Amino acid sequence: MHLARGPAVLSRTLAGSRASSSTLVRTRLLSRPLSSTSVRRNEQTTQTSDVASPPSRNGSRWRSFLQLLGRATLVSIVAGAGAFYYVTQKERHPGNQLPYDPEKKTIVILGSGWGATSLLKSLDTTEYNVVVISPKNYFLFTPLLPSVAVGTLSQKSILQPTRYVARHKTRAVTVIEAEGKKVDPIHKTVTFEDDSEIQGTVHQTTIPYDYLVYAVGAEVQTFGIPGVQEKACFMKELADAENMQRRFKDCIESAAFPGQDSTEIDRLLHIVVVGGGPTGIEVSGEIHDFLEDDLRTWYPELAGRIRISLVEALPSVLPMFSKQLIEYTESTFKESKIEILTKTMVKEVKDKSVVLQMPDKSIQDVPCGMVVWAGGNKNRKITQDLMAQFPSVQTKRGLTVDDHLRMAGAEGIFAIGDCTSTSYAPTAQVASQQGAYLARVFTQLGKKENLERQLISLDQAITTASGEDKAKIAEEIESTQSQIAKIKIRPFHYSHQGSLAYIGSDKAIADLPFANGNIASGGVATFLFWRSAYLSTLFSLRNRTLVANDWLITKIFGRDLSRD
Amino acid sequence: MHLARGPAVLSRTLAGSRASSSTLVRTRLLSRPLSSTSVRRNEQTTQTSDVASPPSRNGSRWRSFLQLLGRATLVSIVAGAGAFYYVTQKERHPGNQLPYDPEKKTIVILGSGWGATSLLKSLDTTEYNVVVISPKNYFLFTPLLPSVAVGTLSQKSILQPTRYVARHKTRAVTVIEAEGKKVDPIHKTVTFEDDSEIQGTVHQTTIPYDYLVYAVGAEVQTFGIPGVQEKACFMKELADAENMQRRFKDCIESAAFPGQDSTEIDRLLHIVVVGGGPTGIEVSGEIHDFLEDDLRTWYPELAGRIRISLVEALPSVLPMFSKQLIEYTESTFKESKIEILTKTMVKEVKDKSVVLQMPDKSIQDVPCGMVVWAGGNKNRKITQDLMAQFPSVQTKRGLTVDDHLRMAGAEGIFAIGDCTSTSYAPTAQVASQQGAYLARVFTQLGKKENLERQLISLDQAITTASGEDKAKIAEEIESTQSQIAKIKIRPFHYSHQGSLAYIGSDKAIADLPFANGNIASGGVATFLFWRSAYLSTLFSLRNRTLVANDWLITKIFGRDLSRD
Repeated sequence: MHLARGPAVLSRTLAGSRASSSTLVRTRLLSRPLSSTSVRRNEQTTQTSDVASPPSRNGSRWRSFLQLLGRATLVSIVAGAGAFYYVTQKERHPGNQLPYDPEKKTIVILGSGWGATSLLKSLDTTEYNVVVISPKNYFLFTPLLPSVAVGTLSQKSILQPTRYVARHKTRAVTVIEAEGKKVDPIHKTVTFEDDSEIQGTVHQTTIPYDYLVYAVGAEVQTFGIPGVQEKACFMKELADAENMQRRFKDCIESAAFPGQDSTEIDRLLHIVVVGGGPTGIEVSGEIHDFLEDDLRTWYPELAGRIRISLVEALPSVLPMFSKQLIEYTESTFKESKIEILTKTMVKEVKDKSVVLQMPDKSIQDVPCGMVVWAGGNKNRKITQDLMAQFPSVQTKRGLTVDDHLRMAGAEGIFAIGDCTSTSYAPTAQVASQQGAYLARVFTQLGKKENLERQLISLDQAITTASGEDKAKIAEEIESTQSQIAKIKIRPFHYSHQGSLAYIGSDKAIADLPFANGNIASGGVATFLFWRSAYLSTLFSLRNRTLVANDWLITKIFGRDLSRD
Repeated sequence: MHLARGPAVLSRTLAGSRASSSTLVRTRLLSRPLSSTSVRRNEQTTQTSDVASPPSRNGSRWRSFLQLLGRATLVSIVAGAGAFYYVTQKERHPGNQLPYDPEKKTIVILGSGWGATSLLKSLDTTEYNVVVISPKNYFLFTPLLPSVAVGTLSQKSILQPTRYVARHKTRAVTVIEAEGKKVDPIHKTVTFEDDSEIQGTVHQTTIPYDYLVYAVGAEVQTFGIPGVQEKACFMKELADAENMQRRFKDCIESAAFPGQDSTEIDRLLHIVVVGGGPTGIEVSGEIHDFLEDDLRTWYPELAGRIRISLVEALPSVLPMFSKQLIEYTESTFKESKIEILTKTMVKEVKDKSVVLQMPDKSIQDVPCGMVVWAGGNKNRKITQDLMAQFPSVQTKRGLTVDDHLRMAGAEGIFAIGDCTSTSYAPTAQVASQQGAYLARVFTQLGKKENLERQLISLDQAITTASGEDKAKIAEEIESTQSQIAKIKIRPFHYSHQGSLAYIGSDKAIADLPFANGNIASGGVATFLFWRSAYLSTLFSLRNRTLVANDWLITKIFGRDLSRD
C-alpha cells in the first residue's frame, strides 16, 4: 500500500495573543485506513490540498509590526485621554487648604502679571500667608494679545484667573480685586481701593505686610504726544485688543457703506501701527493674516485696498534681534506689502490722520483709519509716589533694586518686572524669572527664620539645662548655627532663553542662545517652534488646550467678522 | 505496525483576510517512516500534540463581527472627518456670484434677525437683486444668549456674520451695516445711516426698492418703569450678555473685598431676574449652573450666599407650557433654591435695590446686586413712523399684515417677525418660518412675472404673425396663461414645532406637538434633546461645531471667572 506522504505542518499560535499569524497553510493530508474495508477508498484518496511554500517571513514581520504599532497608538491615545481628563479634573477640584496663620509672616503681592503670577505659582505657602492685590483678577498671556486683537484666538484662552492658581496652594491665598493706591514703607502697610463699577459699602482699606512684593508693572508710554491717549488703540490689556478689533471692523464696514468716497475708502482702510518692537511687528503680521485668510473672501471688493504701515523712531525694527533676522522680517513685510517707516516719529494723532516726522525731518499729515500704539512703558503713579519717599536712592525712571531684588531704601520690599529699572530689558521673560527667583528666596528666608527661632529657644533652654542635656543642647546650637550659615541667598541671575516674534504669513523669527553664540532662524519651521514654545510657556494645561483648540478652529473656520 | 491516528485538521484562512482565525490547533502527527531504519524511531514517536476540539464557531463569528465593527468605525471616522473638512473648506471659499442686474427687481431686507436670515438663506437670488441693511453685521442665535451671559458658550459660537450667508448666494448680495432710519412707502425708498463710532464722509443715504421685507424686530419693553432702562441688564443682544457677565462678576469680587459688611455681601450676591418666560427661566438656570459648577470651587466662602429671585407679574411662569411642566420647573427651582415670585410687579429699579409690588399689593424695597430684565417687546421708532403713515389700517401695537404677510396699506412691503402684530407669539420659530415662507413667495412671484413678461411679448408677436405661426403662438399664449393661473401663492401657515426651555441643573422641559395632542417631557434626557434640537437649528456646520466644542470645553475646564 502506498500512501502519499509529506511534511505535516504544526500550526502554532503566539502564546496569549488573539490574532494569530496569518500564514496561509494547506496541509497535505495523510489518511490512514481505520479498517481494511476502507483501504481501497484510501488508495483512491485524492490530494485535497497542496502544501504552499512557506510565506515570506519579512511580510509577516512587517504586518506584526504594524499591528503592534496600531495597538500601541491606540493604547497611547486612550492613556493620554485618561491622563488629560485626570489632570483637568484635578485642577477643577482643588483640595483643602491651610487657613490664615497669625504666627506666620504675611507676603503681600501687588500685581497679577508675569512677575506676580510666576512668584505665586512657585511660592511655598507653608511658611507664609499670602495676599494678592490687583485690579485684574486674572493673568494675561501678553505675547498672544495681538492674536486676540484680530480674532485668531479668543480672550478666554490667553487668560488665567488668579484664583485658579491661588486655590491650589498649600495655604489659602487671599485674592483681592482692587487697585493699589498707596504703599507706606515706614509702617509697612498697603492701601487699596475697589473702584470698579459696582462696589460694596466697604471699598477701600489698608492692610499690613511683613514682606511686600511690588510687581505692578507699567503704563503705556505716550511721551505726551497729543492725541495718543485719546485716539490711538493700545495693545497692553484685553480691553485694548477688543477695542482694536471693534474699531478695525468698524473701519471696514464704514468703507463698505454704499456710495463711499474713494479717498475715504483708502483712508479708512489705512492702519498705522506705531512701534517696531515685537508687539508692533506681531500686530502688523496678524492684521496681514486676517486680511489674507478672511477679508479677501468676505470683502473681496475692499480687501485689496487695505494698507498697513509700521512706524518706528529708531533706525531699525526689532533691535534685540540679529541683523539677518531684521532683514528677513523686512523682506517678508515687503512681500506682504506692509510698509516699514523707520526713523519716523509720530508728532500727533488726529481723528482721521496721523502727523509723522519723516527721516528727512519733513512733516506729513497721513490719512488713516486707526492708529495702534505699541509703544513703551511709563511708570504708574503709585510707583512714582513710592519712589518719592526715598529721593536719595530712588533716582531712576523705575524702582532701583539690589542684586537680590530688594528695593533700595525700603525695608522688606522686593520689586520685580517692568516697574523696576535694571540692566535687563522690560520683558515677560525677565519678570517671570525674577518671580521664580523670589519664590526661592522666600523659601530660604523662611528656613532661615525657622532655624533662628529654633536657635533662640535652644539658647533659652541651655540656660536652664545641666550636665548631659546641656552638652546635647550645645551640640544642637552648633549644628543649627552651621545650618544657618549654610543658607546663602544667591543674587538674581537672568538666563536669557532667546527672543521670538511672529511676523505673519505663518512665519516667525527666533534668536536663541546656543553655546557661546546664538542660533538665528526664520521661516515656517520657526513658526511651528514659536507655537510650541508659547504652548509650553502657557501656565496651565487649560490654557494650552484652549489655545491649541483656537488655532485649530481658526484653521478650519477662519476668523470672525462680526462687530459688536 | 501500529501508528497513532486521528483526524487531521485542515486549517483554512478566510479568503482575502489578513487576520486569520485564532483557533488553537494542535495536530496529531502522523509520521511514516521514510526508510526502514526509522521504524523503531517511529514506534517511539511520541505524540507531539493533541487534536483540540474544533473551536467554537460562535466565538470566531463574534470576533469577526467585532473586527468588522472596528474597521467600519474607523472608516466612518475617517470618512466623516473628510466630509467635515470638505464642507468647512467649501463654506470658506465661496465661488463666483452673478453681479447686480438692473433688469431684475430689487428686494431690500431690513434686519438681520431670525426672519431676515431665514429669508436670506432660502431666497433664490437668480431672479432678484438683494440688499440687506442692519446695524448688526451678523445673525445672533438668541436662545443660547443666556449661556453666553454666564460663560458656558463664547460669543463667537452663537453668531454668524451675514456675509457668510450672503457670499454663497447665486447673485451677489449687498450687505450694509447701518441703521434703517426711514421707510418711504410712497416713493418706495429706504433711508439708512451708519452711526457707529467710525464713519466715512458718506454715512447716510437713500436707496429705492421694488420689494421691501421689513424685519427689524422690536426693542425691549420697559413699560416706562423708572430705572429699568438705566440700571437693569437686558438680555436681547450680545452686548447685554457681556454686560450682565461683567456686572455679575463685579458683584462677586466686590462682595469678596476684605472687611465687607455682611449685609452688603448678601445684597451684592442677590440677583433679581425679571420675566418668567423662557428667557428669564434660562437666565436663572444658567446662573445657578455657574454657581454650582464653578463658583463653589473658586469662591467657597461666598458661593453659599448667592441668591437668585425670579419675578413674574402673571400668576405663573412659562405660560406657553403645559401645567405639569410648569410645576416641574417650579419644583426644580425650589431644589436649586431659586425663589419664584409670581403675581409680583417691578415698580422701580434703584442702584442697590428693586422696588416690588407683592401679590398682596404691599410694596417692598428689596436689596439686590443687579437686576436682569428679560421683559417683553416694544416697537422701534422706525416702525411707529411707518405705521403712522397709514393710520386707518395700522392701528395695533405692531404692523398689521394680511395672510400673505403683506403690510396693510403699503404696496410692495412684506413684514415678518416681532415687529408685526399677528395671532402668533413673537418667537424665533414664527419669524423663521415666515422668512422661509417669503422666500417661496418671491420665487413664485418671480416665476409669475417672468411668465407675464413672456405673455406680453407673445401678445405682441401674434399681431405680426400669420398662418401656422399664428396658430402656434396662440397655443403658447394659452399654455402660458394656464401656467400663470396655476401659480397660487398660498397664505402663510405656521406649524408649531414645540417649545423648549433649559431650566438649569442639566434639565430641560419640552412641549412638543404629537398627533392631536402633545408630549410634555422634562429631565436630563430632555436636556440632551434640547441640546440636539438647538444644534440642528443652528444655521451652519460652523456654529454647530463651535457650540458643541464650547459645551465640551466647559465640561472639561469649567467656566471663566475673569472680569474685564
